[in-house]
Amino acid sequence: MTVADALVDLRSDTVTRPTAGMREAMATADVGDDVYGEDPTVNALEAEVAALFGHEAALFAPSGSMANQIALQLLVSPGNELLCDADAHVVTYEIGAAAAYGGISSRTWPAVGADIDPETVAGMIRPDGYFAVPTRAIAVEQTHNRGGGGVIPLATLRELRRVADDAEVALHCDGARIWHAHVADAVPLIEYGQLFDTLSVCLSKGLGAPVGSLVVGSAEKIERARMIRKRMGGGMRQAGILAAAGRYALAHHVDRLAEDHARAARLAEAVAPFGVLAAPVRTNLVPLDLTKHALDARALAAAAREERVLVSVLGPRTARLVTHLDLDDAGVTRAAAVLGRLLAA
Amino acid sequence: MTVADALVDLRSDTVTRPTAGMREAMATADVGDDVYGEDPTVNALEAEVAALFGHEAALFAPSGSMANQIALQLLVSPGNELLCDADAHVVTYEIGAAAAYGGISSRTWPAVGADIDPETVAGMIRPDGYFAVPTRAIAVEQTHNRGGGGVIPLATLRELRRVADDAEVALHCDGARIWHAHVADAVPLIEYGQLFDTLSVCLSKGLGAPVGSLVVGSAEKIERARMIRKRMGGGMRQAGILAAAGRYALAHHVDRLAEDHARAARLAEAVAPFGVLAAPVRTNLVPLDLTKHALDARALAAAAREERVLVSVLGPRTARLVTHLDLDDAGVTRAAAVLGRLLAA
Amino acid sequence: MTVADALVDLRSDTVTRPTAGMREAMATADVGDDVYGEDPTVNALEAEVAALFGHEAALFAPSGSMANQIALQLLVSPGNELLCDADAHVVTYEIGAAAAYGGISSRTWPAVGADIDPETVAGMIRPDGYFAVPTRAIAVEQTHNRGGGGVIPLATLRELRRVADDAEVALHCDGARIWHAHVADAVPLIEYGQLFDTLSVCLSKGLGAPVGSLVVGSAEKIERARMIRKRMGGGMRQAGILAAAGRYALAHHVDRLAEDHARAARLAEAVAPFGVLAAPVRTNLVPLDLTKHALDARALAAAAREERVLVSVLGPRTARLVTHLDLDDAGVTRAAAVLGRLLAA
Amino acid sequence: MTVADALVDLRSDTVTRPTAGMREAMATADVGDDVYGEDPTVNALEAEVAALFGHEAALFAPSGSMANQIALQLLVSPGNELLCDADAHVVTYEIGAAAAYGGISSRTWPAVGADIDPETVAGMIRPDGYFAVPTRAIAVEQTHNRGGGGVIPLATLRELRRVADDAEVALHCDGARIWHAHVADAVPLIEYGQLFDTLSVCLSKGLGAPVGSLVVGSAEKIERARMIRKRMGGGMRQAGILAAAGRYALAHHVDRLAEDHARAARLAEAVAPFGVLAAPVRTNLVPLDLTKHALDARALAAAAREERVLVSVLGPRTARLVTHLDLDDAGVTRAAAVLGRLLAA
Repeated sequence: MTVADALVDLRSDTVTRPTAGMREAMATADVGDDVYGEDPTVNALEAEVAALFGHEAALFAPSGSMANQIALQLLVSPGNELLCDADAHVVTYEIGAAAAYGGISSRTWPAVGADIDPETVAGMIRPDGYFAVPTRAIAVEQTHNRGGGGVIPLATLRELRRVADDAEVALHCDGARIWHAHVADAVPLIEYGQLFDTLSVCLSKGLGAPVGSLVVGSAEKIERARMIRKRMGGGMRQAGILAAAGRYALAHHVDRLAEDHARAARLAEAVAPFGVLAAPVRTNLVPLDLTKHALDARALAAAAREERVLVSVLGPRTARLVTHLDLDDAGVTRAAAVLGRLLAA
Repeated sequence: MTVADALVDLRSDTVTRPTAGMREAMATADVGDDVYGEDPTVNALEAEVAALFGHEAALFAPSGSMANQIALQLLVSPGNELLCDADAHVVTYEIGAAAAYGGISSRTWPAVGADIDPETVAGMIRPDGYFAVPTRAIAVEQTHNRGGGGVIPLATLRELRRVADDAEVALHCDGARIWHAHVADAVPLIEYGQLFDTLSVCLSKGLGAPVGSLVVGSAEKIERARMIRKRMGGGMRQAGILAAAGRYALAHHVDRLAEDHARAARLAEAVAPFGVLAAPVRTNLVPLDLTKHALDARALAAAAREERVLVSVLGPRTARLVTHLDLDDAGVTRAAAVLGRLLAA
Repeated sequence: MTVADALVDLRSDTVTRPTAGMREAMATADVGDDVYGEDPTVNALEAEVAALFGHEAALFAPSGSMANQIALQLLVSPGNELLCDADAHVVTYEIGAAAAYGGISSRTWPAVGADIDPETVAGMIRPDGYFAVPTRAIAVEQTHNRGGGGVIPLATLRELRRVADDAEVALHCDGARIWHAHVADAVPLIEYGQLFDTLSVCLSKGLGAPVGSLVVGSAEKIERARMIRKRMGGGMRQAGILAAAGRYALAHHVDRLAEDHARAARLAEAVAPFGVLAAPVRTNLVPLDLTKHALDARALAAAAREERVLVSVLGPRTARLVTHLDLDDAGVTRAAAVLGRLLAA
Repeated sequence: MTVADALVDLRSDTVTRPTAGMREAMATADVGDDVYGEDPTVNALEAEVAALFGHEAALFAPSGSMANQIALQLLVSPGNELLCDADAHVVTYEIGAAAAYGGISSRTWPAVGADIDPETVAGMIRPDGYFAVPTRAIAVEQTHNRGGGGVIPLATLRELRRVADDAEVALHCDGARIWHAHVADAVPLIEYGQLFDTLSVCLSKGLGAPVGSLVVGSAEKIERARMIRKRMGGGMRQAGILAAAGRYALAHHVDRLAEDHARAARLAEAVAPFGVLAAPVRTNLVPLDLTKHALDARALAAAAREERVLVSVLGPRTARLVTHLDLDDAGVTRAAAVLGRLLAA
């Protein structure tokens, strides 16, 4: 390595910076006051995303966490229950908002990532009634972040929809990286869309926009969502600046995710020989399990940083590599070499 | 059966009515204003129960649910996390209060009743930090209600204490029926007490008092608990009337639980031949699993009711028999015969 | 004073101890499991109180605070608004439960006790809509605790009802001491009842029962109230023990409140000459304002305590005398003399 | 009027669109992942604003509502109390978030806008203790939105600071339009800053940035604020795009507020002769009280809209005119004429 080596940031796909084209789109965006419903670019983005998923409406929000939490508050009243997996983003990385702000009780099935067993979920549902807390919604995550970017198969989702219908509970998709599932499994977004009562989708991770997620659902739900967004402090004024970046991202950055997946596969190949690949790589996440390796997660990250390669530490023995828009082949090649070398040592 | 047959109520141990001695104790109780801390009988009961479990203090509450929820609010701030099993009373039968009122986020390990694997629990704990919701407390239930009255072995509890200590999280015991564990496993209450940061214990189930539970913990915690109890609306005035029944129950109704356990064993024997015993019977609960039986839970309960035997329906194929202070041998014998006959049909 | 002088406790009407007749009623009460709706004495009390106020249903609760909070949660969803006065019990003495557990936003009109101006209240109501927090309920307190036991005139209440109807918001009465208003103004309870959507009434203050309040309202509301009570931890089992005392109190202790009012008037006469009477005495509360007196509230209370007379300190310069069931004429005469002497000094 | 007349939008100062210079600043902004604390433009803006107010730190948030709510959650724990006026933005226009999400109990002094009487506020404060809900914070609004853009005099604020200090409660400033107070009263921002524990300030109203507010306070508070912002869903990634607009606004749009004030004064002059000016105009808001006028608020707004002049309807007889960056002299002159004509009719 020389000082001249560019930094290869594999920590997260949230670190991407807007491209020149995206900046141009923001600079020239037509905007208005979105709290008054008068921002044409936000309105266009909302209509576009609703249509992509075959729903009536969508609402722009400043983060994926807010989009998820708005959806959960739409589906589950205080004191009622949400089921999700023990590693779900909504109960892990959203600072307890579902309980703290939504009063939502949660029970979790084991952390199996994308490998959900619909019958396990069905067995946890509690019916309405005077005694037990009634289950109102089930949430899944597509792709699954802590599950190493795993993709829930369409057949599993269909089975979950049937489970939800039988029990008359709602089904939410934390679709922060649903674009990756769409590309990896070649499932049209609209097919995913029709399986869920609500979805959250993110423009700011794989798609590379600077800020923004959307909640997708029925017109009635999105009307209520507008109030919840305001209560959460998510009512922005000339948000069209951000929405313009989102529209650009949808137009230019969805299909290219295949490239991120291919680069993630190359990184996986580089580390697999050392027995640290936690799960098969399907999308842009490469989960590392260092339980049996001499290096722990912090040590690996520190050593890689010395070589200008940045890696995420998720736990004492858990780390993660992520590919995204701001990488290039040279960087990924160099990172693969660096990580291989460090793990071999 | 003749009309003269007395009703045998096996639905729950909450149905017991105060005995003559207990009524006498209530009628002659010395009382004062407990919101001012001036009820001598409440104060005596609180001191007595604290001592039983080797803790500094205890607080009387109108229900086991309130006692549990006070403890959880003591241990876990809004937006932080509680771990418990997916069938725990605190996330099943308390109407979502932990989330709705305490803002407490929960994740659950699978519903294994008393058969807890401490390593599974250890693996779920999330450390303090900026990203993931930090785990602040683990709750267990002794004996386990939906777990068929199972008793968590002392060794398991000790292992959980070690897990909690290692992670610097608190350990709460929902001890609504801890008296049964004490009798069944011959473990001194004080040994249980020293393993937990807080316990809730109930006077109104197996012990037969009409109303009342206590939260047990350090003096500092119980001082704060007093405010939380008031916020929950549990500040009662001359509560010594109820506390007198509780003191009577502690003096007269603990050791006799062995009798309830023996009667539960007899009921278990009567139903076991029909393959419907969901778990071995250790205490006063007899859990029935009717999945493979011709009768479902509602049908069994309806048929038994015709014969003046009452049974709890917990789910479509799940029922429960409970022994308690208000039963006698004749009634249990008759109920065993009735249930055997119905299951054989 | 001699040591033999009996203590005269004027701190609160919550300090009363059950009479012999009331204890007898408790000792012989017919009881059942009230969580199952099977306690005959609770059921009888609930029916009786509902009828007294001309409502469909009522629900027994362990405290006045819980009864109020259940009612507020029935009327106002999280994020919506309650209007009340700045000295109302519901925002002063209930530990913030309306906001902390109910998520209820409150705005207050100035602390005028019973002297409410309906037009001031009308001017504060905010309509439903996208921008401002909508007002859902108005709460008044009859009689008014911090307002010195003042009685809101029937005409004012009728005017408030009209204001509430015009704006389509609900009207709640914190009727902890509504019995005193009924006696002082000779207004039938049913006339009060018909003016409110919900009332809370207390058996444990002026009426002398050891524990218990009720929420009164429509059948639909009380059905929902049952769930909220459980969530708050107010589901008690053989609560008929307490309900029996309540029924006894209703039968024997309502009309006699006139005696408490007369005794309060005598205490007021004794202190009035010293310019410390904060408001005219209408019921059983005697509010003292010591702003212009040499003694502050703590000093007065300490000196009185030396003479075995107990007085409530509400603020640095605010104190309160309360008459109740546990006093007798001799005690009140002695207390009047003691207080007169101390204030004259 | 001809169709060619440009729309004059006097509804709010939130409707402004970014200027060319501001768009250029956004398009060229240096950005990073702000959730990781790595966005240089956000970091620069936060440091800049903290310094302006003489505080240690500041935090960027997507809206003024979120900035206020973060501050309130910092200052007041669930179940504790906030005092503010009955027309304050924090209890009027933030959808009940303080109670619904923060569990914050509120009592209010009458809606007097900027004419606060510190002694009235002092008289409402409740001390810490076992009985009454303790007051933890007082919030004021500078300038006061529903108070017609009134400016709280520096002397009043200093008196409030003394009141807060005496009672050991915190003082928060909703400073969405504090820039206008700074310009109108020629008070340095740092003088305001030193009077408050926390402030929220807005870049998106008078200053004309598309999105963004900041919470200002001590380093310890802003550290905690970062977690609360995440829980509220306000953690954005490349937020530097927005922060760049904010920095531009601070550099170019503060002093020019004098122009907005002058234009508001001209509008006030035009309507004053018709007796509809609700309060003297000090800044950029012109509050109209149509109680005694033939036109109600909706009718005036509808008639003005016909003439391409937009006016805000705040209540049946209350309306508002607001001047801002997107107006010019010609538009204001035309609007003044239109409104004069309509009110004269």
